[in-house]
Amino acid sequence: MPKVKFTPQNKVAEVESGTNLLKAADRAGLYIEGDCAGRGTCGKCRVKITEGDRVEPTTAEKKHLSPGDLEAGWVLACQRVLDRDITIEVPIQKDAHLRKTTLAGGVEELTAEPLVEKTAVKLSRPAVKDQTADLERLLGRLERPELNIELRELAHLPTLLRDNAYAVTAAIAGDRIISIEPGDTTDQMYGVAFDIGTTTIMGSLLDLKTASVIAVAATTNPQNAYGADVISRITHASESRENLKQLQEKVIEAANKIIKDLLRQTKVARDRVYEVTAVGNTTMSHLFMGVDPTFLAPAPFVPAYSRPLEVEASELGLKVNPAGRVTFLPNIAGYVGSDTVGVIIAADMDQRKDNCAAIDIGTNGELVLAANGRLMACSTAAGPAFEGAQIKHGMRAAAGAIESVDYKEGEIKLGTIDNLPACGICGSGLIDAAAALLDAGLIEPSGRFVNPEENPEKVPDRFKNRLRRGEGGYEFVLVTAEDSDIDSDIVLSQGDVRELQLAKGAIYAGLMILLKEAEIEIDDLDQVLLAGAFGNYVRKESALTIGLLPQLPPEKIVAVGNAAGDGSRMALASKTIRERAGNLPHRVEHLELSTRPDFQDIFIEAMAFQKI
Amino acid sequence: MPKVKFTPQNKVAEVESGTNLLKAADRAGLYIEGDCAGRGTCGKCRVKITEGDRVEPTTAEKKHLSPGDLEAGWVLACQRVLDRDITIEVPIQKDAHLRKTTLAGGVEELTAEPLVEKTAVKLSRPAVKDQTADLERLLGRLERPELNIELRELAHLPTLLRDNAYAVTAAIAGDRIISIEPGDTTDQMYGVAFDIGTTTIMGSLLDLKTASVIAVAATTNPQNAYGADVISRITHASESRENLKQLQEKVIEAANKIIKDLLRQTKVARDRVYEVTAVGNTTMSHLFMGVDPTFLAPAPFVPAYSRPLEVEASELGLKVNPAGRVTFLPNIAGYVGSDTVGVIIAADMDQRKDNCAAIDIGTNGELVLAANGRLMACSTAAGPAFEGAQIKHGMRAAAGAIESVDYKEGEIKLGTIDNLPACGICGSGLIDAAAALLDAGLIEPSGRFVNPEENPEKVPDRFKNRLRRGEGGYEFVLVTAEDSDIDSDIVLSQGDVRELQLAKGAIYAGLMILLKEAEIEIDDLDQVLLAGAFGNYVRKESALTIGLLPQLPPEKIVAVGNAAGDGSRMALASKTIRERAGNLPHRVEHLELSTRPDFQDIFIEAMAFQKI
Repeated sequence: MPKVKFTPQNKVAEVESGTNLLKAADRAGLYIEGDCAGRGTCGKCRVKITEGDRVEPTTAEKKHLSPGDLEAGWVLACQRVLDRDITIEVPIQKDAHLRKTTLAGGVEELTAEPLVEKTAVKLSRPAVKDQTADLERLLGRLERPELNIELRELAHLPTLLRDNAYAVTAAIAGDRIISIEPGDTTDQMYGVAFDIGTTTIMGSLLDLKTASVIAVAATTNPQNAYGADVISRITHASESRENLKQLQEKVIEAANKIIKDLLRQTKVARDRVYEVTAVGNTTMSHLFMGVDPTFLAPAPFVPAYSRPLEVEASELGLKVNPAGRVTFLPNIAGYVGSDTVGVIIAADMDQRKDNCAAIDIGTNGELVLAANGRLMACSTAAGPAFEGAQIKHGMRAAAGAIESVDYKEGEIKLGTIDNLPACGICGSGLIDAAAALLDAGLIEPSGRFVNPEENPEKVPDRFKNRLRRGEGGYEFVLVTAEDSDIDSDIVLSQGDVRELQLAKGAIYAGLMILLKEAEIEIDDLDQVLLAGAFGNYVRKESALTIGLLPQLPPEKIVAVGNAAGDGSRMALASKTIRERAGNLPHRVEHLELSTRPDFQDIFIEAMAFQKI
Repeated sequence: MPKVKFTPQNKVAEVESGTNLLKAADRAGLYIEGDCAGRGTCGKCRVKITEGDRVEPTTAEKKHLSPGDLEAGWVLACQRVLDRDITIEVPIQKDAHLRKTTLAGGVEELTAEPLVEKTAVKLSRPAVKDQTADLERLLGRLERPELNIELRELAHLPTLLRDNAYAVTAAIAGDRIISIEPGDTTDQMYGVAFDIGTTTIMGSLLDLKTASVIAVAATTNPQNAYGADVISRITHASESRENLKQLQEKVIEAANKIIKDLLRQTKVARDRVYEVTAVGNTTMSHLFMGVDPTFLAPAPFVPAYSRPLEVEASELGLKVNPAGRVTFLPNIAGYVGSDTVGVIIAADMDQRKDNCAAIDIGTNGELVLAANGRLMACSTAAGPAFEGAQIKHGMRAAAGAIESVDYKEGEIKLGTIDNLPACGICGSGLIDAAAALLDAGLIEPSGRFVNPEENPEKVPDRFKNRLRRGEGGYEFVLVTAEDSDIDSDIVLSQGDVRELQLAKGAIYAGLMILLKEAEIEIDDLDQVLLAGAFGNYVRKESALTIGLLPQLPPEKIVAVGNAAGDGSRMALASKTIRERAGNLPHRVEHLELSTRPDFQDIFIEAMAFQKI
């Protein structure tokens, strides 16, 4: 099996031939950043081959890397399939300054505005004629006599001062000294931005002096053991205080694992990490903070809090500086969490002047509309189908998943992730498949498969044996058992199509309600942003074909990657942005779709497969 | 052995016949308040005999109790010697409102001004049309949207609200909700005021609604195991971080023992205690807070901090409401601690307009002078002799200690505590003895015993066999081995007299330096306050005879009891007073006597026994 060595992290993975570098890194416990789930479309997973043979660049590499880069050994990790031993350099992007994605007018570099200030001072020595106490001597020199101080820092201040010739650096957060360090450490100031997903937790280490990302890491959310979806976790937490504590411990453990990884990658000291931000859905926020989420589940879906929660790292057991400031960005409602706040911030939706909608499809679907100076949001129970749940052969976007289905020149062509034999179908494949079968005339606009017995003329000969009677209606065989990686045919069932209709109908109807509320029409939208991994890999054409997205010129529809995570980083890099995020619960109008009689009408209409 | 039952605490002690009630209470783990160490002069240790025979009231009881009180069974605990079974009611002084001892002009009742506010509210229920989060619903109802909240209170807010029909009480400290309680608990608001002595720790439970003391308790400071004096403890703490932690744990343990006792006496719930204040010398303050006291010991005697330290109870492990606010009043200098701040506050020295000096003699001697709008303080290493240290037969003021020595009509008469056979001499006895022997002409003004061989005419016949040669000079036999409770004579040695001279010289000289600095004369003093137990039992006449106190009309010299502890209670009862105390480090000018060349001159002169 080929062996891959990753530098400078000095990690090694032995993997099967044919595995790509992205997965090999994952195997080695490393996270290589990317927005397109390995599809070669984002160009972010740049790594450099330092030892091992070169091979011809792929089309994706030629698109994203310059000839000079290619010459120097740069490749895209998602494009490189391993067949021999190799050594890879994973760049720590020291110069990866955060950019504000002002989507209306391009990008703009973010100014570093840390909450924590650091000041190095040299104090006069005490004498019998100047018996000023150590703390007051320090505060006097800082010219901030009003500051408070952490007791744990005061406890050993006397020795610290005398051991360091009275030269120390104070780290100050607001009106409080949170750390006193020997000598001049003003150049060491770091923070971690988390994106706490129901499935995956990601963390980025930022140099707060420069607002640049210097390392990233990810891990699965170990709360998975208590159920894949938020409702299972709420149920578990609501059963006892111990269960709630257990779920909190799990996520904090995972966050600490990420922190450890980030610190090891960069050799940054734990105590020099002073700030942490996090985003996640409202349930993740409650569980991270150890707050009872019970009443998020039943109507009226009331959170315990919506404001941003700011606590000390030691209160949560996060292994950064114990007095580090941890901020979970605010919730807007029970099912519109700080992940949506992150999207709003990353896309500048609270400041832009045009009309813009954002759609974030994860386990749930959240929608935001910025129009006429108003900001509105709602959530729809739309996600699971797009993540493969409730779909007969559904699966997550992993190796072997059917991720694309094309109907061209009378043929249906499939693509799978990593070109492996198919073992199921993921969200993008599902949308593609429905669009392809619609184009082929095998699915009617109502969502029903054509009845080959009633209307045999509608079924081309080559599909006659693939459209067959299944449970609850007809089904279409995408891959036969012979060609698949599982023991049976892989099909798209009538039930699958119904699930997709429910999901896409809900999202579309949610968007329509927002537009109606804002008193604008579809054509008034200047931009529709697709956030999250889903947004990166869904094909706009298919989404338009099945009517998941409104009929807009494709250039108005933009995939913006993990905007929630970007929002967390931006809020970490700038206290001004953090404050803006903190105010969003007051600014964003939340529409509870279940209370609107007009929602059901639009929803039922929107379930049909038609370009609306 | 007679048995005493204490109600309502329901404690029982079996003690030897002849033990007084004060000691019996101590044996039962109860503390009965008093300022005069059981001398019958303060009249504070009132208890009521509810079962058991009455006896004739003593002179002290007749002085402090009305005929009606006596009729009803009230006695002074220090006056009652046990000889049979008895049941006692120890009054919980529900109506013992704190009084501001404006010594210049009488007493004035203190207004309750707690830091913590409590508000009971009833919230509207959430509905699908009003999905406001629980916290924001509460803050909205309180009309305090800016408040923060303890995470531990937020964690279970959702269930608390729903289990109590949305009727709760919020306890607010500053900008923070520290407790949310079911129903209306606005009438339950308590605090504990500590006086952390090097030897004894005392605590009072206050009802913060009424500024009244409802229970008191005391225990010895378990740090005693690491040395009786502050220097031994500083040395121990400076040896390792573990030692420092150990000393902190000891004092916190003792404080928790007191809290437990106070809560048991009154049936107050731990979580309803929201505020704690403490006073103590600077070393005690450092050790209570776990702050390294190392550099208090060597010159220039620099504390780690002087400001008041305010922390959460949970940071220290104090067993009151975990978010309770704990304030240790500020230090003025390395050897002028918050106990002195307490004295200043209790005696209103920062506000009164006359010229007033306060002398607090404990293990150290601290002096404060308020004159011409200035406040000045200094400390002198004077205390140990008055607590029996460095004195040949010295002992603390305990049973059997010679506490009074009278020279009258050519006779020397001794009094011992509890009238037991003498086993040593305590501070007041030492001063009395020196004064008596001066009066008898046996000690010369220089402090030397007269030489019976050179000047036999100066020694009356009846003392000839009692003035004898001892180590380093002559010594006077106070009690012979035959009459004493120990195996030897009890003597006052030349060395003892020298120790006394050093101590009284230092205090007197300290006072003179303060007067000099303030540019006033002794006669300009309107009042001299004697704080601490010592002040209550020293006899003014003797102190004036040996020149420990300046020559002033006796009515200008006032014993004020445990003023440091009173200051702690007053600061607890009123946030305004606490704030005043907090500002004292800026107001009080600290004079470091060791830097003053004039101190030595005055000190040497002041060592002589003369009325100066």
